[in-house]
Amino acid sequence: MLLFDAARPNPRAVRIFLLEKAITLPMQDIDVDGGENRQPEFVACNPAGQVPVLEVDDGTWLAESGAIFQYLEELYPEPPLIGATAEERAVTRMWQRRIERRITEPLYAAFHYGPAVDMYKNRMVVLPESVAGFKALMHDGLVWLNDLLPATNTIVPGRFTVADITLFAALDFGVSIGWSLPAELMHLKQWFEATAARPAIAASLHPKSTQTGVHY
Amino acid sequence: MLLFDAARPNPRAVRIFLLEKAITLPMQDIDVDGGENRQPEFVACNPAGQVPVLEVDDGTWLAESGAIFQYLEELYPEPPLIGATAEERAVTRMWQRRIERRITEPLYAAFHYGPAVDMYKNRMVVLPESVAGFKALMHDGLVWLNDLLPATNTIVPGRFTVADITLFAALDFGVSIGWSLPAELMHLKQWFEATAARPAIAASLHPKSTQTGVHY
Repeated sequence: MLLFDAARPNPRAVRIFLLEKAITLPMQDIDVDGGENRQPEFVACNPAGQVPVLEVDDGTWLAESGAIFQYLEELYPEPPLIGATAEERAVTRMWQRRIERRITEPLYAAFHYGPAVDMYKNRMVVLPESVAGFKALMHDGLVWLNDLLPATNTIVPGRFTVADITLFAALDFGVSIGWSLPAELMHLKQWFEATAARPAIAASLHPKSTQTGVHY
Repeated sequence: MLLFDAARPNPRAVRIFLLEKAITLPMQDIDVDGGENRQPEFVACNPAGQVPVLEVDDGTWLAESGAIFQYLEELYPEPPLIGATAEERAVTRMWQRRIERRITEPLYAAFHYGPAVDMYKNRMVVLPESVAGFKALMHDGLVWLNDLLPATNTIVPGRFTVADITLFAALDFGVSIGWSLPAELMHLKQWFEATAARPAIAASLHPKSTQTGVHY
């Protein structure tokens, strides 16, 4: 297998997942800022033009971090980061989806259409008029989650899962570009600090983070 | 198990899935127009306040149609609608995510913030200023998919999957409220017609569709 990595939050989520599982994979860095993921040879294999991508042993390119998590969990079940039973897996997938829809997608949209719009306007349809709206959606999602966070400091009660990884990679990126967490969201702040203290978090930072100060 | 159903496209996607699998489950209809899914007793069990929900035998409420598909596929593997191998499942999940992000989410956002905004503005953050933008995103996603659709008339080459179900439920709803498919997207049109011809499609319509003409 070969993992196409990059200095971006979703590739970092996969790096956190690998560190939590103690899996080592060969990696190849893709220069997203330079548009390497938009070159014809990359898009021919991943028509979404994004990273991360996991090339598996039969040559298939698997894109979408959620799909990569599930594939790797099937191959390396321990420790479970999705779940050990069908019910546990289902609950994690439900939360993963809620986190994406209510928080991380609006966050990435606000980034792509806002501070990064000059880069992305040549790569995708952009909605700069909607940046304030996406930030309002994200804020609403954070307030909603804050009220639901269990005292165990994990999104799924009592289990650290891909939902925590997905949310942390997005929020830590956001915080590092100046989008601080609303101070009144005490449960979220506590969850963020507890997650940040896991050894995989510091170890997962891309080398470029040292130069740029951006967490990805 | 008990499935909370409704006259909405995502609940219909679960009905299509059940018919394709020949699974029969007890169902309870939720009046979304009347706000039954926003009542305290419903939200206490599903804090996202949405349908479908599958209540499983240990009492857990599973929300998010993607999570429900995967749970039911684990219990009833035949015929596979996600995949029979880890690689097949991964490819389906990748496509499911692409379809959601590029087409069905913008479609539902354009509906919730557009023609249905008077109902939804009291239930969620709405972005009416972004309706044109979400329609542009959806159109871009449809053009992208049209160029990638394989001649097998399934999104994943040679296999009918949950990605087809998810997309069909959204587009058939859209068409029925007057958002016709762009005529120049011939592959998409062919895929749509081939999918519509499956027996599960007509059989999955909610009884309310007969009264309203809306496909859900």
